[in-house]
Amino acid sequence: MEIERKYLVNEIPFDLTPYLCRHIEQGYLSTEPVVRIRQDNDNFELTYKSRGLMVREEYNLPLTKESYLHLRTKIDGRLITKDRYVIPMENGLKIEFDVFLGDLAPLLLAEVEFPDEDTANAFLPPAWFGEDVTFSSRYHNSTLSRA
Amino acid sequence: MEIERKYLVNEIPFDLTPYLCRHIEQGYLSTEPVVRIRQDNDNFELTYKSRGLMVREEYNLPLTKESYLHLRTKIDGRLITKDRYVIPMENGLKIEFDVFLGDLAPLLLAEVEFPDEDTANAFLPPAWFGEDVTFSSRYHNSTLSRA
Repeated sequence: MEIERKYLVNEIPFDLTPYLCRHIEQGYLSTEPVVRIRQDNDNFELTYKSRGLMVREEYNLPLTKESYLHLRTKIDGRLITKDRYVIPMENGLKIEFDVFLGDLAPLLLAEVEFPDEDTANAFLPPAWFGEDVTFSSRYHNSTLSRA
Repeated sequence: MEIERKYLVNEIPFDLTPYLCRHIEQGYLSTEPVVRIRQDNDNFELTYKSRGLMVREEYNLPLTKESYLHLRTKIDGRLITKDRYVIPMENGLKIEFDVFLGDLAPLLLAEVEFPDEDTANAFLPPAWFGEDVTFSSRYHNSTLSRA
């Protein structure tokens, strides 16, 4: 079970170089339910997500590099590429800040994952977060893959 | 975790009409690891199996009919079609007896699933079972999809 909120960000808010950064590429074989392939640095995985917005059931299953490259030939729409910065917050939560590359640039999205729904509902976003798009399917990566 | 043994069968051993029968079609998006789509009567699912022969980790995840038909356009090799008869044994175990259709006919395979490895190793097959092909990748459905 994954409980998260997602926000648009209008501009890069501060120097990101001190933060952990992973290069991610991902594509979709199906969007309802989500069947996604992803390369996250040197890790390759297949992800299945049941339907839903804030709360979704998620399985992350390992792929070999070869099976990833094979499945990548089967994706619908575009391959999404982004740099993901992990920014710790004072309350112990972490922001995953996605800087999209390629033809989705200069899109910026911030996601925060929560241990439970109460924490998610009580969350006060930092001032540099923009519009809350948690309940908008428009900024799902699966939608962005088709945009 | 799935623990099973698989046997070739040379001919249909007795009248199968009293037994529960499901019509199955399945295809593969990847073989190592296995990423399989399957229609089992009116159920549609995506299956992931880690690598291995007798013991494999397996996840069965629901698909809609639409997502199944979409993913079916992406399979490698042939779509496997078969009728699966479930035949109970006196010891409480069940035989899944697969009668392959299409260009894999007249192939017949019997599979028995076990609660643990000791039961699997102690299993005495019925006289109508042929060659034990548990440890042969040749009769994996993923191999048959490419044959």
